[in-house]
Amino acid sequence: MTSKTPSFDKLSQTMRPHIQAELQDAISDAREHGTQEMHNMLAYQLGWVGDDAGDKAQGKQIRPLLVLLTTQAAAGERQAALPSAGGTWRAGLPAAAAVELLHNFSLIHDDIEDNSALRRGRPTVWKKWGQAQAINTGDAMLTLANLAMLRLTETTSPAITLPAMRIIHQTCLRLTQGQHLDMDYETRGQVTVAEYWEMVEGKTASLIAACCELGALCAKVSAETQSLYREFGHKLGLAFQAQDDLLGIWGKTEKIGKSTTGDLLSGKKTLPIIYGLAQGGDFAARWKEGPLTTGEIPAMAQTLEAEGARAYTRDAADRLTEQALDALRDANPQGEGGDAGQAQFALHELANKLLRRKG
Amino acid sequence: MTSKTPSFDKLSQTMRPHIQAELQDAISDAREHGTQEMHNMLAYQLGWVGDDAGDKAQGKQIRPLLVLLTTQAAAGERQAALPSAGGTWRAGLPAAAAVELLHNFSLIHDDIEDNSALRRGRPTVWKKWGQAQAINTGDAMLTLANLAMLRLTETTSPAITLPAMRIIHQTCLRLTQGQHLDMDYETRGQVTVAEYWEMVEGKTASLIAACCELGALCAKVSAETQSLYREFGHKLGLAFQAQDDLLGIWGKTEKIGKSTTGDLLSGKKTLPIIYGLAQGGDFAARWKEGPLTTGEIPAMAQTLEAEGARAYTRDAADRLTEQALDALRDANPQGEGGDAGQAQFALHELANKLLRRKG
Repeated sequence: MTSKTPSFDKLSQTMRPHIQAELQDAISDAREHGTQEMHNMLAYQLGWVGDDAGDKAQGKQIRPLLVLLTTQAAAGERQAALPSAGGTWRAGLPAAAAVELLHNFSLIHDDIEDNSALRRGRPTVWKKWGQAQAINTGDAMLTLANLAMLRLTETTSPAITLPAMRIIHQTCLRLTQGQHLDMDYETRGQVTVAEYWEMVEGKTASLIAACCELGALCAKVSAETQSLYREFGHKLGLAFQAQDDLLGIWGKTEKIGKSTTGDLLSGKKTLPIIYGLAQGGDFAARWKEGPLTTGEIPAMAQTLEAEGARAYTRDAADRLTEQALDALRDANPQGEGGDAGQAQFALHELANKLLRRKG
Repeated sequence: MTSKTPSFDKLSQTMRPHIQAELQDAISDAREHGTQEMHNMLAYQLGWVGDDAGDKAQGKQIRPLLVLLTTQAAAGERQAALPSAGGTWRAGLPAAAAVELLHNFSLIHDDIEDNSALRRGRPTVWKKWGQAQAINTGDAMLTLANLAMLRLTETTSPAITLPAMRIIHQTCLRLTQGQHLDMDYETRGQVTVAEYWEMVEGKTASLIAACCELGALCAKVSAETQSLYREFGHKLGLAFQAQDDLLGIWGKTEKIGKSTTGDLLSGKKTLPIIYGLAQGGDFAARWKEGPLTTGEIPAMAQTLEAEGARAYTRDAADRLTEQALDALRDANPQGEGGDAGQAQFALHELANKLLRRKG
C-alpha cells in the first residue's frame, strides 16, 4: 500500500480481519450444546466453510465497514491513534459484527421466503439443509446478532449499549415490515410510488441507516451528529435501491455487466416499473396482459424509457445521493484532517462505489 | 373471590389483564408502516382475533405468570402494597410480555418446521397465511419480544435491563439449539438419554428457567437468590417435560383425558421410548422394524412398562419436582407472610398444577 491507495480500500483492508475475528467469536456459542452442525450452517452462510468458501462467498461486508468507518469519522479530532495501532473504530466492532449477522439472518430467511436456490453463487442454506433447519438457523443468526451487540458493554459502556440494543431491535422490526410489504406487493396488481418507498425504507434503508447511527453512537458524539450520520445512511440506502432498480432494467447500457432483462422478466415491481404502470400508457397496457417474454424485453425497456421511467428513477437516485452526501458533510464539517478525516473520505468513496459513480 | 380462593387463581386473575395490556402495547408498533396485516397475524397467534379467538386460543400464559409471581415472591418483605393496588410484580410486566412473545415466536416457527396444521385447536399461522409470511411474522414476534424487554428501563433501571436483555437473547439461542437437536433426533436411529436432556434443556427448560430468573432480577434480589429461582424454573421445566412424556404414552391411565397413543404412534423419541430402546429388549426389537400400528399400541405400552421405562420416567419427574420445590423453598425461606408469601405459595401451586399433582 502506498499513500496513493484510496482511503476506503486501505481502511477496509485493515478492518476486515478484525470484523472476521469478531464474527467468529460471536457465533462460537452456537456449537456449545451438541449443535456443531448448526454452527456449521452459520459458518457456511458467512462464507467460511463448504464449497466455494472465500471472499466472494463472504460478500462485501459493506454494513460492518459502514459502522467502523462511521465510528472513526465521527470520533473527529478526539482521537490521534492510527487505525493499525488500535483506532477508535475498534469500539464499534461488536456493532459491526451485529449488523453483519443481522443482514445474514435476513438473507437466510428471505431466500426461503423467495424460494431462491442460489446466494453469492452457492446453494442457499435451505437448499443444502432443508427449510426446517434453515428457518431455525436463521433464528439463531438473528439471536447471535443481538448477543454480539451486547458485547458493546466491553468496548463502550452500558449507556451506549442500551440505545444500541434499541436500534438493532427497531431495525429488525423494520426489516420484517419491509419484507412483509415486498411479499404482499408481489400478489397485488397496483402498487403506488409511496408504497414502494415504504417497502424500501424497511427492507434496505433501515439497516444502512442503523449502521451509520450505530457507528456515531459508538464514537459517543452528540445526538444531533448521530442523526446526521443516520440521515446519511438512510438516504444512501434509498439511493442505492433506486440505482439498483435502474440497473435491473437498463444495466447493460450503464456498462456494469449486469443482465438488462432481470426485473422486467421476473415481473418484480421496482421503481421504474411502478412509475411506468402509473403512466397508464403502452407499457402499462402490455404489463396487464400477463408476463413479458424474453423476446419482448428490449422493446419494453425502450417503451418504459420513452414514457419517462428511466429519467424519473435516475433523478430520484441522484437527488437522494446528493442528500446523503450533504448529510455526511454536515456531520463532519471539519473535513480532511487526521484519521477521522481519512475515514470521512472513505465514507464518501464507499457511497460513490455503492452508487457506481466516479468518486 | 373469598380468602379460600387458592393464591395462584387469585393472583393470576389479577395479573392477566395487565399482561394482556402490556402485550397489546408491545405489538402495536408492528402496524405503523402499512403492515396492518402483519399486526393481524400477530394478534391471531396471540388468540385475540380471528375464528375461535378467546381464552383457549390465548393459552395458559404460564410463562408471564411465572415472571410476575417470581417478581412478587422474590421481593420478600420489602414491599407492603397489595397486588391490586399496584404490587411489586408490576415492575416485571415488560419481562412478562417479552417471554410470552418469545414463546409465541417459537410456536409460529416450530409449527412450520414440524408441519403442524393446528395449534390450540385453530389453524396455525402458516396454514392461514402461507409459510413465507409466517416465517417473517415469527421474526417480527421475536423482535417485538426484544423490544418489549427494553421497556424494563421504564419499570426498573438500566442496571436491570441490560442483564435482562442478555437473559432473553441467551434463552432464545438455547431455544434454537433445542429445536435443532429435536429435528436432528427425528432423523437418527439412536439417541442417548444424555442427548435427550440436552434437547429438553434447550427447548423447554431454558425459557421456564429464564422466566423465574427474570422475575427475581426485576425484584432486585441478590445474585444468589436469582440463581435459586432460576434453578427452580430449570428443574420445573425438566420435570414438566418428563411428566409430559409419561402422559404421552400412559396418559389415560393417569386420568387426564389425553390420548394414550400419541408418542408411540408418531414415533417421537421421548424419554420412556429412549430408555426402552436402550434396554435392547422386545420393545427395541419391534421399534427397529418400523412404525407401530394403532392396534399394537396398548401392547407396546405394556411392554415398555414391563421393561422399566414408566417407572424410570416417573422417578425422573418426581426427583426433578422435588429439586424444583427445594430450590423454591431455599429462595424464600421466610415462607408465608404477606404478599411475597402469597406469591411464593402461588408458585408452589403452579408447579403442582403443571406437574398434575395435588398441591
